[in-house]
Amino acid sequence: MAEKVVFYHAGCPVCVDAEQRFAGALDKNLYQVEVVHLGEQPARLDEAERAGVASVPALVMDGAVYHINHGADLSALR
Amino acid sequence: MAEKVVFYHAGCPVCVDAEQRFAGALDKNLYQVEVVHLGEQPARLDEAERAGVASVPALVMDGAVYHINHGADLSALR
Repeated sequence: MAEKVVFYHAGCPVCVDAEQRFAGALDKNLYQVEVVHLGEQPARLDEAERAGVASVPALVMDGAVYHINHGADLSALR
Repeated sequence: MAEKVVFYHAGCPVCVDAEQRFAGALDKNLYQVEVVHLGEQPARLDEAERAGVASVPALVMDGAVYHINHGADLSALR
């Protein structure tokens, strides 16, 4: 079964670039990617923070957080 | 033809974790990943820096640099 990964972003250019690169580059046989736009879904900010996300864009895979470059701090989205 | 991407690291725990996650997660039909250990191959530091790499681990895809979390600044490897 494909492992679920969550890509958090906020629509910023850095985010969109990373989304197109990474969400599309992952092996779809191994990973099922959910893309969450925290600007449009602020209700998921708490979940992202609990997962360890400090800034976007970020990818959460199996409990591990990968901050990819830097678009915006999570605090700027609240 | 698979696009070539280069994953630069320096053997640090943050690097190794990111390497195992990302180098293995990319779709092998689309990407051919070269892993470069800058601690063991310091001759490639200049190339990495020219590509825009400021710290490791970093992934260079089609001219774009993605710094994934932060293990060590490139300057610490010289």
